[in-house]
Amino acid sequence: MSILSTDLYQLTMIAGYFEANRHQVPATFELFVRRLPSNRAFLIAAGLESALAYLESLRFEADEIAWLRGQPAFTNVGQRFFDYLATFRFTGEVWAIPEGTPYFPNEPILRVTAPLAEAQLAETALLAVMNYQSSVASKAARIVHAAAGRPVMEFGARRAHGLEAALGAARAAFVAGCAGTSFVEAGRRFDVPLSGTMAHSWVLAFSSELDAFVRYAELFKDHTVLLIDTFDTVEAAKQIVRSGLRAQAVRLDSGDLLALSRDVRRILDEGGLAATRILASGDLDEWHIADLVAAGAPIDAFGVGTALSTSSDAPALSGVYKLVEIGERGNTRSVMKRSTDKATWPGTKQVWRTTRSGHAVEDVVTLSNEAGPQDGVPLLEPVMARGRRLNQAPTLAALQRRARMLIAQLPDTLRRLDAADIYSVTQSAGLRELGAQIELEWESSR
Amino acid sequence: MSILSTDLYQLTMIAGYFEANRHQVPATFELFVRRLPSNRAFLIAAGLESALAYLESLRFEADEIAWLRGQPAFTNVGQRFFDYLATFRFTGEVWAIPEGTPYFPNEPILRVTAPLAEAQLAETALLAVMNYQSSVASKAARIVHAAAGRPVMEFGARRAHGLEAALGAARAAFVAGCAGTSFVEAGRRFDVPLSGTMAHSWVLAFSSELDAFVRYAELFKDHTVLLIDTFDTVEAAKQIVRSGLRAQAVRLDSGDLLALSRDVRRILDEGGLAATRILASGDLDEWHIADLVAAGAPIDAFGVGTALSTSSDAPALSGVYKLVEIGERGNTRSVMKRSTDKATWPGTKQVWRTTRSGHAVEDVVTLSNEAGPQDGVPLLEPVMARGRRLNQAPTLAALQRRARMLIAQLPDTLRRLDAADIYSVTQSAGLRELGAQIELEWESSR
Repeated sequence: MSILSTDLYQLTMIAGYFEANRHQVPATFELFVRRLPSNRAFLIAAGLESALAYLESLRFEADEIAWLRGQPAFTNVGQRFFDYLATFRFTGEVWAIPEGTPYFPNEPILRVTAPLAEAQLAETALLAVMNYQSSVASKAARIVHAAAGRPVMEFGARRAHGLEAALGAARAAFVAGCAGTSFVEAGRRFDVPLSGTMAHSWVLAFSSELDAFVRYAELFKDHTVLLIDTFDTVEAAKQIVRSGLRAQAVRLDSGDLLALSRDVRRILDEGGLAATRILASGDLDEWHIADLVAAGAPIDAFGVGTALSTSSDAPALSGVYKLVEIGERGNTRSVMKRSTDKATWPGTKQVWRTTRSGHAVEDVVTLSNEAGPQDGVPLLEPVMARGRRLNQAPTLAALQRRARMLIAQLPDTLRRLDAADIYSVTQSAGLRELGAQIELEWESSR
Repeated sequence: MSILSTDLYQLTMIAGYFEANRHQVPATFELFVRRLPSNRAFLIAAGLESALAYLESLRFEADEIAWLRGQPAFTNVGQRFFDYLATFRFTGEVWAIPEGTPYFPNEPILRVTAPLAEAQLAETALLAVMNYQSSVASKAARIVHAAAGRPVMEFGARRAHGLEAALGAARAAFVAGCAGTSFVEAGRRFDVPLSGTMAHSWVLAFSSELDAFVRYAELFKDHTVLLIDTFDTVEAAKQIVRSGLRAQAVRLDSGDLLALSRDVRRILDEGGLAATRILASGDLDEWHIADLVAAGAPIDAFGVGTALSTSSDAPALSGVYKLVEIGERGNTRSVMKRSTDKATWPGTKQVWRTTRSGHAVEDVVTLSNEAGPQDGVPLLEPVMARGRRLNQAPTLAALQRRARMLIAQLPDTLRRLDAADIYSVTQSAGLRELGAQIELEWESSR
């Protein structure tokens, strides 16, 4: 992805910082969401590794610089700026909340301290990556919870917003607890377990449904999942029993999944195919799955597409990336905006989570140099210094274990699909005082 | 993007077709949506050029093939299949409805005829690309309509589902009538006009708001758009007037946009800055814009982010890609699925639009070898043969002109934001007969 995959104002602003000789001033930006989308009582952080890979790769190619010079907006920008772009690298420091961690509004999940131009340029990409993967992970946590222990497979590539999004969705869904994905590249790149069945086109491409089933099973043996709703689901199940096919599973993709799963289970059991499992798919979401589970549908696993890959009921997070401190060490200035409904908290921050008897009870946001609550654990950790990652990327399996543990620590009332409680997040005294002080200075300067 | 950016079952199915020696059988798939999302009375086709570029680039690299061979699902697949993958190319024929054309449910917007394995493999990518860009274009058409002639800029990269999605959003929004985008790569790749302002961080990075404004205007002169809501919007406008700054525009990004735009307009006019325009942004969508326009808000242009780049109220289309015909020439078989609520129409099709006195009045879907209605115009055109594009890609400006003309031809009642009419789409006698005949054959075969 070209470094020009960004908003124009990032480039004009860094030109402006350069001309004003402010491009090297240390600056800290924090990435957080202002509020929860509807139907979410908590969010799951995801996308950090993609964000760090982006920061490590940031550079301008010669043809990109040449193109930029020709743009009308840059007419008055001198050659020295374009020379600077040729050497541009991200050299900053990053703190972050690890992927898979539940988080809440006004809690920074990423904090970037770097020369102003570098920290500024990264905004668009950091937001796009972290907003999206966190959206999917947050939705996945709800769907996995609704499935109550039955595996959930991510099948949403065809409805994702392009193939890069499909890759991010598979990754984020796995971090938040999905058992696998149909998206092959996620298996190759991130070791996400792969899961696949067959399409209706397979069934239609042979002279009969049974012929299609037999051909598939011959080749894929233990990996065979037969899609049985192309013509008549119940008839297809009977046909499988009569033919003696031993599929790993059958997939239901349409119709009344509760009634069909019961009919198909009975037919398979009576036919001696108790080991053949039932996979259900077809526009599923957490509410539909919870209903099926509550009704005792004999469904062994769920395939979920659109709801996961687009986080369909909340396709965007209100994630923002805001300047909170600027200036040379020893001479820094904390800043905040006052915009109606969009005011921000100033200063660089830390987030502390307090757990009692294994349950998270409260988060406190403090200034980064303040002491946290006595029994609190700090969530933001250093992950990059001088533009280089401090640790090897954790495996997705490790992130998934972490997410499972931390989600389990949330109060039960927060994991409810509907009418969930609101988790307590407060600002420390130091943070509130700093905000009040800046407000006062602003008032007195008018 | 690797060819492995696809669903696992595409790869297992093509292995299965190969082993059954059916991979070269000519097959036709059609891409269409089953139904409209809520709040949409028509859709705008987009994404075709990206889809064709994908088809032209389809090939397996040696390391991808080696990785695939090692996957458990492929244990029983012989070496001949992997040799075949090394030579795999898309060699088929594609018909499509041109980008920028309004379309409706059950109308194929893309029809692929190719050897079965090639047509099958492309499914995931074709759906992801066409579903997404058509979603954005369809949303953009509503937003542009609501703005009633005022330019709409696409500002949604930070909320798009990653940077590739941001590029697709900028492209599709422009096709459907947006005036420009903030996403630089869309300017470089597709000549979409670029638009940029400044972020709150720019204002906060200087010692005072006025200093920040002056510095920007010095460098960017005619391209200066000042963001004036960081502290107090009305005060900022007064300050601009007092300082004698001549910005191209000011941007409002928060608060009551109607009241603020009136106050700011009055201040600018009284200060001799009648030429300075007002741009509004901040979680805007078509309803909010329509309200502002109806109230006579003195806003000259709108910047729209999340609503465009995620098509937030309808983030996915129910687009599908279905096998409709299979077999050697002279021995083809039309096919359809019968799944509950998901049945499809068989056979290869054409879509005809009838226009009277400059207004589209009805579409008819026919079999592709059937005559259309006497005064109808066929919408599907050949765009690729033997795996190569037939024509140079049209410019986005040409696509935008086409879209504007065709949207204007729709009945007024279809362009209403709420309670729009339903456009008439019918199936031809030939198509209905073919469906009934296949249904009969199926019933009698049981």
